[in-house]
Amino acid sequence: MHQNQDQKSGLNMSRRIRRTPFTDRVEEFGVKGFTVVNHMLLPKSFSTSLEEDYWHLKNHVQIWDVSCQRQVEISGPDAEILVQKMTPRLITEMKVGQCFYIPLIDENAGMINDPVLLKIERNKYWLSIADSDVLLWAKGLALGFDLKVNIIEPEIYPLAIQGPKSEKLMISLFGSKVSKIEFFHFDYFDFLGQKQLIARSGYSKQDGFEIYFSGFKLGSKLWDVIFEAGKDFDLLPACPNLIERIEGGLLSYGNEFTRENNPYECNLGSFCSENNNFDYIGKKALNKIKEEGITKKIRGVFFDGGACPPCVKPFPVYSKEGLKIGEITSGIFSPYFQRNVGLAMISKNYWDIGKQVDVHTSEGKKRKGLVSSLPFSKTN
Amino acid sequence: MHQNQDQKSGLNMSRRIRRTPFTDRVEEFGVKGFTVVNHMLLPKSFSTSLEEDYWHLKNHVQIWDVSCQRQVEISGPDAEILVQKMTPRLITEMKVGQCFYIPLIDENAGMINDPVLLKIERNKYWLSIADSDVLLWAKGLALGFDLKVNIIEPEIYPLAIQGPKSEKLMISLFGSKVSKIEFFHFDYFDFLGQKQLIARSGYSKQDGFEIYFSGFKLGSKLWDVIFEAGKDFDLLPACPNLIERIEGGLLSYGNEFTRENNPYECNLGSFCSENNNFDYIGKKALNKIKEEGITKKIRGVFFDGGACPPCVKPFPVYSKEGLKIGEITSGIFSPYFQRNVGLAMISKNYWDIGKQVDVHTSEGKKRKGLVSSLPFSKTN
Repeated sequence: MHQNQDQKSGLNMSRRIRRTPFTDRVEEFGVKGFTVVNHMLLPKSFSTSLEEDYWHLKNHVQIWDVSCQRQVEISGPDAEILVQKMTPRLITEMKVGQCFYIPLIDENAGMINDPVLLKIERNKYWLSIADSDVLLWAKGLALGFDLKVNIIEPEIYPLAIQGPKSEKLMISLFGSKVSKIEFFHFDYFDFLGQKQLIARSGYSKQDGFEIYFSGFKLGSKLWDVIFEAGKDFDLLPACPNLIERIEGGLLSYGNEFTRENNPYECNLGSFCSENNNFDYIGKKALNKIKEEGITKKIRGVFFDGGACPPCVKPFPVYSKEGLKIGEITSGIFSPYFQRNVGLAMISKNYWDIGKQVDVHTSEGKKRKGLVSSLPFSKTN
Repeated sequence: MHQNQDQKSGLNMSRRIRRTPFTDRVEEFGVKGFTVVNHMLLPKSFSTSLEEDYWHLKNHVQIWDVSCQRQVEISGPDAEILVQKMTPRLITEMKVGQCFYIPLIDENAGMINDPVLLKIERNKYWLSIADSDVLLWAKGLALGFDLKVNIIEPEIYPLAIQGPKSEKLMISLFGSKVSKIEFFHFDYFDFLGQKQLIARSGYSKQDGFEIYFSGFKLGSKLWDVIFEAGKDFDLLPACPNLIERIEGGLLSYGNEFTRENNPYECNLGSFCSENNNFDYIGKKALNKIKEEGITKKIRGVFFDGGACPPCVKPFPVYSKEGLKIGEITSGIFSPYFQRNVGLAMISKNYWDIGKQVDVHTSEGKKRKGLVSSLPFSKTN
């Protein structure tokens, strides 16, 4: 094994794969593996199994180091102009304190990223991004269009508190004001004299908050304070849960969709404003796609045959006639549905709910599948 | 452990962390760990130790899956204009068939990447990139400046053949014409009817070639053919070697330097053209830096006290007076020099060769160090 290799995760660590304010604690709490998002470590498992984590998330409360959700801060007199150029979602009505989930698209209407946009001040925005260098995209556009903006990656490290007991835990830490934050809104709270932005949001379908943590050196301290308070609420360290995410139909950029896909294919049409009286990159291409219709879109697929192997490579999906009609890009056994669940881009003629399909998992097995709406439910 | 976790490397695999045409073989040949570069897997160790790999690389020949060196293809009537905008190195004299190592900088002269540029045709370039989404940077600029270019990531997957026996192995595979390729030039060769671009280059100071492989499905086949021929030359599967890279002074974007650094700080002044009669992004900032001089630059540091721990976090470097004067961002024990060697950005007043410093490694030890020129040699 290489010297620079983390003994637990096998991942080669270096300055390039950045640590977070919480990595020291994450390691002390027995992290078993990492992945890399935005050139930064994202913990992927602790001592409990993925299924135990899943039930725990749905019943209690968890702390997730999601610092890899890097912020791209766009400020200055032309900040709104630039942000609006980048997305087909109208942002002019957005208020300070709001969060918007926005598709970012290129000139062909291909997805660049799907960040959460936070309006920090009138001329200051954060894009809380998925895994692509949106900062370079924004900087290139700003330079080329000669816009008066300042674009930086601020020292902000999101820490998520997720699960049904998250509100109680957060109240015990930050007081009852925290419970007043509406979904996809944020407010400010104090931690040891440092102002912290806290939003009601998170990468799960359970209730939750995200602390946009500022003050790298206080990271371990924040973790410890939360952990101490968490003892009353069965708090556990964890990470975005693959089972819960798939069941809930939460997409992952790079997995379910890439620059090859447009927002309609990704079920993000509702985040593309009907109002056509504003300008953005890819408008012409997106309007054409809307007019002509799409030929594939992301669906759920239930499939049988016992727990599927890890979906390291996509599982191809075939029609009953043997035609390849899509592939499952994230798939796993659901202990709730007692069947495998997967997310797949499915061709038009086969995307109807209830359509019977075949899923070819990596062990060479053909499994019976059923096209489902998202999020998955027991009635579809 | 999570279901999607690779059993050997601990790295969570998914479609987002892309596999290469060679990943199947890399796994069969016993890869022990991966890292992630440009959203793609880079093998980091096999069954042999890093030191065994090091000696093997210096005496024999190795095959490296460096597919993660993604290509950004810029073509079209304004291709040269865009590429020139992106770099302070004059490219107008570049000939088809040449490779140029070029710094890419932003408007503040901060490093965006340090790719190898290949001139494929008169209006077609590839940028073989380090770890940042140069494609988004280039696309943003092209849109903003309204340039007539097409920017894509082509289906090209570099495979490196490195080591002193690489020429002999390559001749046995592609004929004697391959030995005629000069350093940092390329030519075309046939593999099973598919045209392959082969350059004399690579991320080591040993001799070597890079096959810019085209034809994903033929990946395992190419690997097998090379392996069969390699039996006569003690070929082993390996990866860029940390010891050899540090000794040779080869930098790694994200490790030794980031967007916070300018080319002069990175010893890349010789790749910034003296000719001032052409335009590029960051020209004003770079000229100012050149005029005013820099306050820190990358140096080697020899340091004592036995093999240092993995340089997972940078090791701070102090002056004899106890002032922090830099940090070692990549460091390891060199079996050749029988001392630790590190790469560090060192402050001006302390960057003289032979300067005595202290290195604080992560186990809390203070080690005696000596500033060195790069590449490291026994005479400095």
